[in-house]
Amino acid sequence: MPEKMTQMDSARQGKLTPELLECAAAESIDPQDLAAQVASGLVAIPANKRRNTKRRAYAVGQGCRPKVNANVGTSKDLCDIDTELRKLKAAEDAGAEAVMDLSTGGDLREIRKLLIDSTAMMFGSVPIYEAAVNATAAGRTVLEMNPDDMLGAVRTHAEDGVDFVTVHAGVTQHSVRALDSDKRICGVVSRGGTMLTEWIRRNGRENPLYERFDEVIEICREHDVTISLGDGFRPGALADAFDAGQIAELTILGELVRRCRDAGVQTIVEGPGHVPLDQIETQVMTAKELTSGAPLYLLGPLVTDVAPGFDHITSAIGAANAVRAGADFICYVTPAEHLRLPLEKDVRDGVIAARIAAHAGHITRDPGARRWDDAVSRLRRDRNWEESIAKSMSPEDARRIRSEGPPMDDSVCSMCGDLCVFKLADENN
Amino acid sequence: MPEKMTQMDSARQGKLTPELLECAAAESIDPQDLAAQVASGLVAIPANKRRNTKRRAYAVGQGCRPKVNANVGTSKDLCDIDTELRKLKAAEDAGAEAVMDLSTGGDLREIRKLLIDSTAMMFGSVPIYEAAVNATAAGRTVLEMNPDDMLGAVRTHAEDGVDFVTVHAGVTQHSVRALDSDKRICGVVSRGGTMLTEWIRRNGRENPLYERFDEVIEICREHDVTISLGDGFRPGALADAFDAGQIAELTILGELVRRCRDAGVQTIVEGPGHVPLDQIETQVMTAKELTSGAPLYLLGPLVTDVAPGFDHITSAIGAANAVRAGADFICYVTPAEHLRLPLEKDVRDGVIAARIAAHAGHITRDPGARRWDDAVSRLRRDRNWEESIAKSMSPEDARRIRSEGPPMDDSVCSMCGDLCVFKLADENN
Repeated sequence: MPEKMTQMDSARQGKLTPELLECAAAESIDPQDLAAQVASGLVAIPANKRRNTKRRAYAVGQGCRPKVNANVGTSKDLCDIDTELRKLKAAEDAGAEAVMDLSTGGDLREIRKLLIDSTAMMFGSVPIYEAAVNATAAGRTVLEMNPDDMLGAVRTHAEDGVDFVTVHAGVTQHSVRALDSDKRICGVVSRGGTMLTEWIRRNGRENPLYERFDEVIEICREHDVTISLGDGFRPGALADAFDAGQIAELTILGELVRRCRDAGVQTIVEGPGHVPLDQIETQVMTAKELTSGAPLYLLGPLVTDVAPGFDHITSAIGAANAVRAGADFICYVTPAEHLRLPLEKDVRDGVIAARIAAHAGHITRDPGARRWDDAVSRLRRDRNWEESIAKSMSPEDARRIRSEGPPMDDSVCSMCGDLCVFKLADENN
Repeated sequence: MPEKMTQMDSARQGKLTPELLECAAAESIDPQDLAAQVASGLVAIPANKRRNTKRRAYAVGQGCRPKVNANVGTSKDLCDIDTELRKLKAAEDAGAEAVMDLSTGGDLREIRKLLIDSTAMMFGSVPIYEAAVNATAAGRTVLEMNPDDMLGAVRTHAEDGVDFVTVHAGVTQHSVRALDSDKRICGVVSRGGTMLTEWIRRNGRENPLYERFDEVIEICREHDVTISLGDGFRPGALADAFDAGQIAELTILGELVRRCRDAGVQTIVEGPGHVPLDQIETQVMTAKELTSGAPLYLLGPLVTDVAPGFDHITSAIGAANAVRAGADFICYVTPAEHLRLPLEKDVRDGVIAARIAAHAGHITRDPGARRWDDAVSRLRRDRNWEESIAKSMSPEDARRIRSEGPPMDDSVCSMCGDLCVFKLADENN
């Protein structure tokens, strides 16, 4: 049944899929080498076979350029599809490779399909949100979701063409006990993690997504959906980083990664969160070791808790260090984090900050990544402002800022005016 | 002659000056311990005795909270004192501890005095700019400055009450040769460094600020001006970091630090610039070692060359890592860097980004620094939005952002609305 082959299956059989060839070209990696990475699970190519619209394929993992994800999505408070479509476009225009739909307001399936059809980015989602919203719509509470609601949501998302789904299967009776054995300031801050933690407490039963993980695997295998193993216990405060709950969950995620690999299903592992700067390398190495080198997808991490309004910056500091240490995939954090839902401008600022971080980290892993910097620096040296801006991270923003004030004279350095260092040196030599 | 005593002299004699006591209280350091650090030159308290207006004293160096500097100043293109006063206020309001006046347009002495009188921040300047502007005003070129112009400018600034002056005395015939022996993309990008490099080339003579450094020491000793040894060869591109010129200059700066200490004059050493993320720790350690642990004052460093318009972020990534590695004093970089002169909003954004970086680095050096984060996180956990914002890095910005969109309901988490994780957990427990 070749239609049931995942990217991992194909790679293991030495078949070079169109998606793999696309990624190999983009990464300048030999296709056979990339296939070996996909075969072993060190690299994922999230590409749902049911998604039939234009889509760029991206390789996420060891040896690949780090990728950036933006979150969009409606809520009960703010449910306007046009707003979300604008945010989607802003993310793509700003250079994100992936988008996750975290919608919790309105007709979730309708919104999801419209968003998928409107972008070429990798598309991710969190099915448990839909299970929760459906439960409350049916007059039950979030804690009265039943196991079939949860599994059903994964199936629906897979059938809708989602390329990667977050599944919080590491929140279990065991990891909740570990969490409770250690003190936290902020407790559980992942939405899916909180739902499942409280579901386990209320119902005194095991997490259905863990208990029935073989079904999750089967569903995702069917359409080659990449399973992004959610970090339900990601720390939400510096003080909470690297505690028993977090590591207990991570250990379970590692087991699940290996079960997925046995079944030919691609995985990504999600990570924190709020982490002090000097703990990032250890966190990344621990995650990589415990999950057998699975592609690592981080939210930030934020390196301080004190800067709401500027968490695109606190997370860029963390993400650059995380990528340096081996993280593969960065979820953006916007300036609105901790304050409100992101608007279009926040999406743009968040994506650019994450791209800066990813690139700064990438330079330390791949000498070739610095060619971009060297090219821009040469243009700057030559006082070729137009070209140096055109080749920069965000030409649109750079042009706008340059146009806001003097100097406007293209023969001089941007800040020094007639004391331009390059002009002075040129004239004397 | 007690009026000739510098902070270093007093500390060496065990006298606790009002400025030292102010700093010890602010840093929660035993005054005797701080005096020992000042005596050895590991900490500087820049406080010109001629400055007779209100001024807060700050300790800069080992064991102290890292400090942030903002640059302001007129240029020929944009010379409006009211604009500069607004930028000064923006920097102080945003929490900078120091400001440097880099003015090159208008009546420089008038501007300087007005700025000094309008702030309580530590006040720094770069006298060579005034020497250059005066030379051109007198119909000569920058390269026709004479040695007395240069020394005279240092004296004028000292007499005007400037707390710390940048002196590029490490740009010498020796270090220029070292620079020329290695290839750079961007050459020399420090304005003062370029002026002196080209002056040396043009005139075939030694840098007067180096040749007559004893006079510089004498002038600064007179009023207890801290000498900030400029890094004329700071790299202006990742490719240029850590080359022969930079290290040759740094070696000279180390010699000058020790000459200043012998004379009881306080010093700070300036550093780069553009530095790849994985080179920052080595750069900081090298600077600290070669300058016998002098307080280290960094511009950034920027960890990529490709993001004009976002260099407050590229430099925040670098600065956090630099502070972690031991840097003591961070000069802000604004979003306008490489594009135009900063406006008021850029000053604010630059200071906040630098403060975030300094704090994120500080947490890794001083366990007490995280108390701030823990307090904000506890308030966030308690859904005490007003207080958590009031205690944050920039309450004004956080309040504005929160007010821009839903959710406005104070009983729920900021982003999740009725799926608020804290509310869900509270209600179930």
